[in-house]
Amino acid sequence: MNNKELTNELARRLGYENQDAAQLVNSMVTMMSEQLQEGKTLVLADFGTFEVKKELERIEVNPLTKQRFLVPPKLVLTFKPAAAFKEKLKNTRAIHE
Amino acid sequence: MNNKELTNELARRLGYENQDAAQLVNSMVTMMSEQLQEGKTLVLADFGTFEVKKELERIEVNPLTKQRFLVPPKLVLTFKPAAAFKEKLKNTRAIHE
Repeated sequence: MNNKELTNELARRLGYENQDAAQLVNSMVTMMSEQLQEGKTLVLADFGTFEVKKELERIEVNPLTKQRFLVPPKLVLTFKPAAAFKEKLKNTRAIHE
Repeated sequence: MNNKELTNELARRLGYENQDAAQLVNSMVTMMSEQLQEGKTLVLADFGTFEVKKELERIEVNPLTKQRFLVPPKLVLTFKPAAAFKEKLKNTRAIHE
């Protein structure tokens, strides 16, 4: 399901025009990105928590040449599913079997 | 930033009433959850991709008792940040240093 399908389905459910729903989803994603880039943690109730974490620099070894090299620190976006969502997945197992 | 702060900020940006924005965010999260539970992959452009994957059963060993036990298969919600978002994080590194 890509952005367009998502916004059309949301528009259908809420009785919005497609482009209003699209503007809305884009604003939400833009806002979430900004907050996360500012280092804030973002909680979507019953879905999960987004957080930008700092991965420290580390030394890695090239498996072929055995040469050691430094991997610089970087920021990574992490997502932790909410317990409520995990619970839902437990009950949907049948669908995937 | 929790749900309330998120919806209030979204309302402020879009000129919506808080409760309309709240209804909207809840509908979106509910819809995303449903689609994912049905096994669909969900792409939020410039943000990331959500997917429910099946973790196969595996045998683990209790480090204390050395007893082996079977961990049943389970569904897990995964999230992969979009390249565009990773790119943004590269430029925000200064904020976190």
